[in-house]
Amino acid sequence: MEYASFLRQHIEEIVRLTDDEFEMISGYFVPRKVSRKEYLIKGGQIVTSEFLVVEGLLKAFMFDDSGKEHIIQFAMENWWVSDYPAFSKQESGEICVQALETCIVLELSLEHKKKMCEEVPKMYQFHAQKAFSGYVALQKRVLSMLKNSAKEKYELLLSQYPQLFQRVSKTMIAHYLGLSRETLSRLVKEIKA
Amino acid sequence: MEYASFLRQHIEEIVRLTDDEFEMISGYFVPRKVSRKEYLIKGGQIVTSEFLVVEGLLKAFMFDDSGKEHIIQFAMENWWVSDYPAFSKQESGEICVQALETCIVLELSLEHKKKMCEEVPKMYQFHAQKAFSGYVALQKRVLSMLKNSAKEKYELLLSQYPQLFQRVSKTMIAHYLGLSRETLSRLVKEIKA
Repeated sequence: MEYASFLRQHIEEIVRLTDDEFEMISGYFVPRKVSRKEYLIKGGQIVTSEFLVVEGLLKAFMFDDSGKEHIIQFAMENWWVSDYPAFSKQESGEICVQALETCIVLELSLEHKKKMCEEVPKMYQFHAQKAFSGYVALQKRVLSMLKNSAKEKYELLLSQYPQLFQRVSKTMIAHYLGLSRETLSRLVKEIKA
Repeated sequence: MEYASFLRQHIEEIVRLTDDEFEMISGYFVPRKVSRKEYLIKGGQIVTSEFLVVEGLLKAFMFDDSGKEHIIQFAMENWWVSDYPAFSKQESGEICVQALETCIVLELSLEHKKKMCEEVPKMYQFHAQKAFSGYVALQKRVLSMLKNSAKEKYELLLSQYPQLFQRVSKTMIAHYLGLSRETLSRLVKEIKA
């Protein structure tokens, strides 16, 4: 498989694999090139896969009834992305995943994920660690959404992911933080002043 | 161990165990009785354990600088609770976990969790599934916090956990949803009207 060395390094940050084990595992990942603005998942589609980002940047987002965009997640190199509520039930969902840059991703279907874990059970350990880290990160985000002022939310994101601010528009940052574009512009001016 | 049948059923919802495997696993869980209002975790303490609720109800919460309470999580029977950001790093944190009713919990330290998984590797599968379900639930919560009106947030929580509304005060529901007590009272009146 192309991108094998990327994948092996990504997994071996958590579990060591033999060459045979990696051989079995890598067959389940399907590389895909995604153009800028292309959708990996469209709301309303049945979601059967998640995606590991090799290169590029994507957003997981939805529109509410009034047409306002809300960004649930950005995903860059080494991150996983999907419509997880829909993926967990293999149903259609309301979240879209769209490339913000030209991307390379490795697609893993739930079916392949299950087979892979049955064949190489130490992949359960990998997924346990990944899911747990994701859970912790989301708990921090919920806490920040509950308790932080708009300025604190902005500064926290900036300190966590400074590179994100070079790669996405301020409008998208606002849609991720749940702020209006005007509030964000005011904040940026305040912080620069 | 007391509460062995509860624990076995909880784990076997995800993975089947032999009697020998369960014997090894159950030794790592320590039952604790917790009085109403007692703290399992106090902000500032090093957090080394997570807790599985056998009986009762707890809240994970924190106070912000202005003294306002924010509730990150309620935990009732079959739920796990901790200060996960602190637990994941074995550091002190800012979250408190307090019993809202007389509770029985099973305490599992990170050290015991690791040993247990090494001895009975199928427990990785259990933890992978639990962490993934938690991740999905939090992603839904973030989405609701971003896109839903106060009324929609309230109605969603009521439809997901109707029993919660019998067991906690409206003030706590407000602190979980990120609403003021006044907004919540107005909503409850509107919905009843």
